[in-house]
Amino acid sequence: MTRADRDKRHEILAAATRRFGRDGYEHTKWADVAADVGVGPTALYHYFESKQHCLYVIMDEAIEGFRSRFAELTSQAPDPLQALAAVLEDCFDLTEQEIMCNRVLVSEQGLLSVPRPSPREEEARQAARARTRELEFAWASFLAAAMRQGALPENDPRLLTRAILGLYNSIWQWYRPDGIHGMRPVADFFQDRALAMIGVAADGRRRSRMVA
Amino acid sequence: MTRADRDKRHEILAAATRRFGRDGYEHTKWADVAADVGVGPTALYHYFESKQHCLYVIMDEAIEGFRSRFAELTSQAPDPLQALAAVLEDCFDLTEQEIMCNRVLVSEQGLLSVPRPSPREEEARQAARARTRELEFAWASFLAAAMRQGALPENDPRLLTRAILGLYNSIWQWYRPDGIHGMRPVADFFQDRALAMIGVAADGRRRSRMVA
Repeated sequence: MTRADRDKRHEILAAATRRFGRDGYEHTKWADVAADVGVGPTALYHYFESKQHCLYVIMDEAIEGFRSRFAELTSQAPDPLQALAAVLEDCFDLTEQEIMCNRVLVSEQGLLSVPRPSPREEEARQAARARTRELEFAWASFLAAAMRQGALPENDPRLLTRAILGLYNSIWQWYRPDGIHGMRPVADFFQDRALAMIGVAADGRRRSRMVA
Repeated sequence: MTRADRDKRHEILAAATRRFGRDGYEHTKWADVAADVGVGPTALYHYFESKQHCLYVIMDEAIEGFRSRFAELTSQAPDPLQALAAVLEDCFDLTEQEIMCNRVLVSEQGLLSVPRPSPREEEARQAARARTRELEFAWASFLAAAMRQGALPENDPRLLTRAILGLYNSIWQWYRPDGIHGMRPVADFFQDRALAMIGVAADGRRRSRMVA
């Protein structure tokens, strides 16, 4: 892929994310995405076979973004509780485009579980599913290690992973950048409640932050 | 509506829920639902204008089911903590059809926020949205009253409602009746973690159950 190709591909993904996030995936016409970036149907096909193919790639890249940041943050932090705090803070450090992307990820998640007849679509779907499993595996491994070290109360790390990600994902079903709740109070609320759910005293964390 | 009409309507809703839950909403053909119940397109139109109209009605009835059980259980329980335990237990007492319905509710939730050009569809969409707000209002009112009584730690009742419902809804994105996790361990895990998130000691609850 040439540099110009990569730029155009990125442009298509951004335009599709905006439309899917704003109008809903089902109600977006693939031709409108093409028009947004000034590309005809034949040229568009060079990048993506279909609207659904493009959706899978958007999901794949977004989930890989979460996974790589998770790996980076948890490897840098000196202990599991600080790693957890860093990850829970980082996942609210979002641009409007990233919020849109989270909304798409959450509302179209169901499409990941339905096989596609087209090989190119099916390959992209499988790739996005594999990414989801990688992210879940990274979380579960981290939680299991923290439990073994005694930093977190014992529990089923896979179910706890799903609970944390499920709680986080649910935010993007209702959160709107222009809504009555600003991002900061939502982030504070979620971080405290996620820690309580994991079994870490959120109050203790806040107190020790204030003392530090 | 005659009795036969009501039965047929119920039959269509059940057939559509099965197909939407199994094959996904987008990949279900409305004509296949008609064939399942042996109804031609004209007769089908008498009940539902479209696949989307039918989806909204499925959602509306499911959410109303949750709301009415919530109202019943919370009005019967002698105190807020017992009411909470009863609601958290009841929401896992599900038939396979109800699990399917939860899956549809969760994976197609995004469609509730996109207005429809058809008046009949739009009316059904608005009705389902109003039900969602009623359920959220019932939960938030209950939580706020329990906080005022000192039965639950103070917090934002509306955000806490969204966190509880978001956590519950997330289960149906991955839970499969034939999967590796049985319903009982999932229910136990969820109930404990939801109580921890709300700020009620799940261990205390379990201990007092065992003593009782």
